[in-house]
Amino acid sequence: MVNADRLFPADPTLRDITRELYAEVKDLPIISPHGHVPIEWFHDKDYHFANPTELFITPDHYVTRIMHSQGVELKDLGVNQKEFTPEQSKHAFELFGKYWYAYAGTPMRYWFEDALANVFGIDKEFGPDTAGEIYDELDALLKTDEFSTRALVKKFNLEFISTTDDTFDDLHLHDETNADPDFPARLAPAFRPDKLLEPKKTPDWAAQVAKLGEVTGEDTSTYEGFFEAMRKRRLYFKEHGAVLSDHSHDDVRSDRVPDDELPALYKEALDGTISEEDATRLRRTFFNDQIRLAQEDGLVMTVHPSVFRSYDKGNLAVYGPDTGADIPARAEFAAALQPMLNQYGSNKDFHFVAFTMDETVYSRELAPLAGFYPGFYVGAPWWFIDSPEPILRYLNAVTTAAGFTKLSGFIDDTRALCSIPARHDMNRRLTCRFVAGLVADHRLSLEEGKRVVRDSVQAVPRKVFKLD
Amino acid sequence: MVNADRLFPADPTLRDITRELYAEVKDLPIISPHGHVPIEWFHDKDYHFANPTELFITPDHYVTRIMHSQGVELKDLGVNQKEFTPEQSKHAFELFGKYWYAYAGTPMRYWFEDALANVFGIDKEFGPDTAGEIYDELDALLKTDEFSTRALVKKFNLEFISTTDDTFDDLHLHDETNADPDFPARLAPAFRPDKLLEPKKTPDWAAQVAKLGEVTGEDTSTYEGFFEAMRKRRLYFKEHGAVLSDHSHDDVRSDRVPDDELPALYKEALDGTISEEDATRLRRTFFNDQIRLAQEDGLVMTVHPSVFRSYDKGNLAVYGPDTGADIPARAEFAAALQPMLNQYGSNKDFHFVAFTMDETVYSRELAPLAGFYPGFYVGAPWWFIDSPEPILRYLNAVTTAAGFTKLSGFIDDTRALCSIPARHDMNRRLTCRFVAGLVADHRLSLEEGKRVVRDSVQAVPRKVFKLD
Amino acid sequence: MVNADRLFPADPTLRDITRELYAEVKDLPIISPHGHVPIEWFHDKDYHFANPTELFITPDHYVTRIMHSQGVELKDLGVNQKEFTPEQSKHAFELFGKYWYAYAGTPMRYWFEDALANVFGIDKEFGPDTAGEIYDELDALLKTDEFSTRALVKKFNLEFISTTDDTFDDLHLHDETNADPDFPARLAPAFRPDKLLEPKKTPDWAAQVAKLGEVTGEDTSTYEGFFEAMRKRRLYFKEHGAVLSDHSHDDVRSDRVPDDELPALYKEALDGTISEEDATRLRRTFFNDQIRLAQEDGLVMTVHPSVFRSYDKGNLAVYGPDTGADIPARAEFAAALQPMLNQYGSNKDFHFVAFTMDETVYSRELAPLAGFYPGFYVGAPWWFIDSPEPILRYLNAVTTAAGFTKLSGFIDDTRALCSIPARHDMNRRLTCRFVAGLVADHRLSLEEGKRVVRDSVQAVPRKVFKLD
Repeated sequence: MVNADRLFPADPTLRDITRELYAEVKDLPIISPHGHVPIEWFHDKDYHFANPTELFITPDHYVTRIMHSQGVELKDLGVNQKEFTPEQSKHAFELFGKYWYAYAGTPMRYWFEDALANVFGIDKEFGPDTAGEIYDELDALLKTDEFSTRALVKKFNLEFISTTDDTFDDLHLHDETNADPDFPARLAPAFRPDKLLEPKKTPDWAAQVAKLGEVTGEDTSTYEGFFEAMRKRRLYFKEHGAVLSDHSHDDVRSDRVPDDELPALYKEALDGTISEEDATRLRRTFFNDQIRLAQEDGLVMTVHPSVFRSYDKGNLAVYGPDTGADIPARAEFAAALQPMLNQYGSNKDFHFVAFTMDETVYSRELAPLAGFYPGFYVGAPWWFIDSPEPILRYLNAVTTAAGFTKLSGFIDDTRALCSIPARHDMNRRLTCRFVAGLVADHRLSLEEGKRVVRDSVQAVPRKVFKLD
Repeated sequence: MVNADRLFPADPTLRDITRELYAEVKDLPIISPHGHVPIEWFHDKDYHFANPTELFITPDHYVTRIMHSQGVELKDLGVNQKEFTPEQSKHAFELFGKYWYAYAGTPMRYWFEDALANVFGIDKEFGPDTAGEIYDELDALLKTDEFSTRALVKKFNLEFISTTDDTFDDLHLHDETNADPDFPARLAPAFRPDKLLEPKKTPDWAAQVAKLGEVTGEDTSTYEGFFEAMRKRRLYFKEHGAVLSDHSHDDVRSDRVPDDELPALYKEALDGTISEEDATRLRRTFFNDQIRLAQEDGLVMTVHPSVFRSYDKGNLAVYGPDTGADIPARAEFAAALQPMLNQYGSNKDFHFVAFTMDETVYSRELAPLAGFYPGFYVGAPWWFIDSPEPILRYLNAVTTAAGFTKLSGFIDDTRALCSIPARHDMNRRLTCRFVAGLVADHRLSLEEGKRVVRDSVQAVPRKVFKLD
Repeated sequence: MVNADRLFPADPTLRDITRELYAEVKDLPIISPHGHVPIEWFHDKDYHFANPTELFITPDHYVTRIMHSQGVELKDLGVNQKEFTPEQSKHAFELFGKYWYAYAGTPMRYWFEDALANVFGIDKEFGPDTAGEIYDELDALLKTDEFSTRALVKKFNLEFISTTDDTFDDLHLHDETNADPDFPARLAPAFRPDKLLEPKKTPDWAAQVAKLGEVTGEDTSTYEGFFEAMRKRRLYFKEHGAVLSDHSHDDVRSDRVPDDELPALYKEALDGTISEEDATRLRRTFFNDQIRLAQEDGLVMTVHPSVFRSYDKGNLAVYGPDTGADIPARAEFAAALQPMLNQYGSNKDFHFVAFTMDETVYSRELAPLAGFYPGFYVGAPWWFIDSPEPILRYLNAVTTAAGFTKLSGFIDDTRALCSIPARHDMNRRLTCRFVAGLVADHRLSLEEGKRVVRDSVQAVPRKVFKLD
């Protein structure tokens, strides 16, 4: 069912070149520097998904939001349900089949078809008539040795994978997994301090700050202690394998509150009396701290701002965050980052990777910035724009001003284990398709094209994320 | 002169698939949920256009603005002229021929060529040398029975068509036309209350509000009466066949003035003493009213904000509005609609269709919103972007995040009767071209592609506009 | 090494049409209405570049910024170095070879390959292994008669070329060059008063204003004198061959400070006590003056706002402006230009050409404005977006609403002499590629397509820049 030439151009000249390029990268191992897969799936030597719905639907807001847009209630897909019976799971899967048509043109359809065929060897066409039987087939397979999560990781040829972790996590599961000779990939945690940088948005901020103090042995009742605690946690993560810190706020400004104002504001934040505006100023100061600390510890910064998270408050109340009700917002990087880049942009060891879902900034801001500052990289298209048309638009938008060496390499950002190989493969196919255009244009020789696509999968992410 | 493969891809593989897809939709009847054709053209059993200039040039600001940009005065095209002799008409048509070259690359050229060939059977190439004789040929044809407006409607295979009407219209012409067994299409009015929602921009707002009171028997000297009158007019339109209300303001915000402030502000608005800022606040409240009323009466809302209407005030003074001097403005939907969608977005029967000419919001805001909220739809490209390249950009921008089922289906928005079939056909060809790419990519089977294009012409607009 | 079909589509149908179109324009002379080549290169009868690095690297911030992004210091490329030995020059060229790979996908690579092959007849592939020998070959050639700048101008088939000049320049070098029967092109200066319009940003503004007074014999201690002096300088430039004035500020607003406030503000500006905000208001007034004067003297206005110039202040301090550390900013034209266009837009002899690097305004603002106002033109893609993908995006974005006659024609904006023919040729190839799509779509006949591409190279820029 899945064609070997998927996503390749129809034109025979372009198709032949694309095939040659793809042959170079098809079997290269996967580097996945950012994702949301739970560590337990890797740590447990024999973890099996309960059923196909737990694997493909419930945790994957990419999938559930489309069904929601067709009128399906998230509870019927198992989202945030304490009890979800096997019958309900099968029913959810059948709903997926019923609304399969609504996925036409979306990447979720592509990834699912890819996983069905390439991971599970099921060649049957998915749809309303077959969803039930495919559920049963998958369910049986998931119970076998071949489909433990560990077995899948091996099958996927994962070389490096990063989880995204709680600031307080002691990372012993990461350590144990990495120490296990049976685990086939290099596993890294990622430092994500977002909540601790948002004094107003994080409801229990003061409690979190107190916990930060406990974990680090610093007195976080003062700003100085908070800063030292952050330094320690970052180092802790680095010592346990992290290569990056990950950040998402409403903007990327990092101007600092004046030093003499800081103690009072920090106190207000702890007291819960801080104003919205001052909380934002404080968050920018805290973000500035992260940038300062990165000069010391060398952790790469991946930054993906400007999303209305939990856009629908009714949905948030019932189902919680990360259930598909997030909407991208307008982004701005050039003005916001100017003070920071003026101060730190000449530190070549300081890697800053900027992701966006506002495509207008690609050619206007991100590519020109990456084309000047050595440590600035244009992040791959992500989330809503991790799909064929947007990936081609991205390459079209950024390569003329930034070349290929200043892109981040692909990140999959997924919670859906089986979509990892499908997503990376999709990106490889599309990169080859784009580069084939340059070769056909006589802008690159075929040999150079091969180097570009190989490097985009290996050398580039290795350099950006300091993996060597 | 018009080629059967117009707008199809040059690549043989893609072209063959496009042909197969187009065969599915070529002859399907036209659904036209939004346009500006005068009801008189449909109501009159034997309406004939006075001459080709009245048909193709004078009322069509798409056409006149291009000649204006070449230095032609609008008066020479008959715009807003009380007297316009046959000689002047012919001269205007010859000017069209003279400047035909300036239309290269524009859709107006395509539509006109399409109409000449397919409606009038004229295969001669239009241009400076032939404009005069083509004028004479058209003029003779327009006087024949075959080219009454009614005959044209039949020829065009129109299934459903909506006009856009004055709030006070008693709609008896619609009723009579629909009651006439000889009229071949379903005809609907559309409720467009824009002027009544703009206390400051509408010069005679108080008088219009008074008239609203008279027509509905409500006391519109108070806000409560105004609200009730709106409820009644919406229902009146619905009873007379309307399926939608249509809205265009500077933004789509709908936050309400606090209830206790409303009476005073409403009075200021009536007195003409209201400030610009408060008038905007009131307009957002009135727009909120329309949304509230839509929860009750179920009229679909079509919303197309953010245009500098009558951008050139000198042109407005001489020629009036809608004469080509409008310029799109930057749009924002996600933040502006958040309160509204949080309150009403879970009502699956509430259909909200968002149109824009700011293409930056397609992938960033509209597609993600449509991919979550069941009743939210991404409107088709419209006005300045109803043309081949933008239509392909639109499909490219929205389908990966919203699929095909959450698009509005095509709307023609036209004042030019003969452009209706040409515009719908253009859109069908381009939809097939885009979907052919998905089929060639092995992302959809040919059978699925056929369903997608058929539905985009029939099932989708039927559902969006509640036509069944 | 450079293929005759470079940048042509791979599809055979499209490629054949592109070839036919390109044959029409390949050998037409070059019109270059905007660039930054020093007048000395043209004036001197026997100017030779000191070495290949002086020709290809040091003055070309397009080239140097990419190496900077790879970690190379600008001083190692000769930027702003008083002394730069032949050994250092050769080393800089070898660095270019070393980082050649980082240019994959960029236009700088294309232009350099084009110049190597077509200007210097060197067919060797450039790269780390060949940079040294190619340097030596170029160095030898540059010393020969065939490669004086005058000889190059002849070779390039330049018909019209404009420099960009200091407001105070007496232009005698232009006069002498134009008077020289041996100089093969028409040479024009361009009036660029940016610094004099920015009372706050220009550090020595008062001194410049005083100098303006001296040069013109006007008392520039008052606003009236300043205005008169500007009138005189504009006319001086026009008398010496200028066809345009060139402007770049943060925005394009031109609202005037009220007349009675002007004297005081002007005095504050001279005293250096003016606030940032008032300096901006004054700049908009001064820009309005330029517009007013253009009504009288008929100089075309080319306007390219919204760039963070010298974004990196550390780089500015060490290397000065125009060394690659500029970043495009968000642009807005429609609202900003409305008062101006309402007042002057109906003057058909007033040509206003709007350039941008914020591609979002092309379809939303610039094309609709050009499709209404006779004297308004959409500028060609420029600087960061003067490259294959963006040029195709530009044509895709603007032609449906503005046609081809309301585009500016290509401008090269270059400081790199040898990139002039390469840039114009690249643009011709891409214009043909785009128009070939319209021909293949059956939207234009081949004959019409030929006229469109020919005019885009000759008739259109002649009209826009009033060259006849």
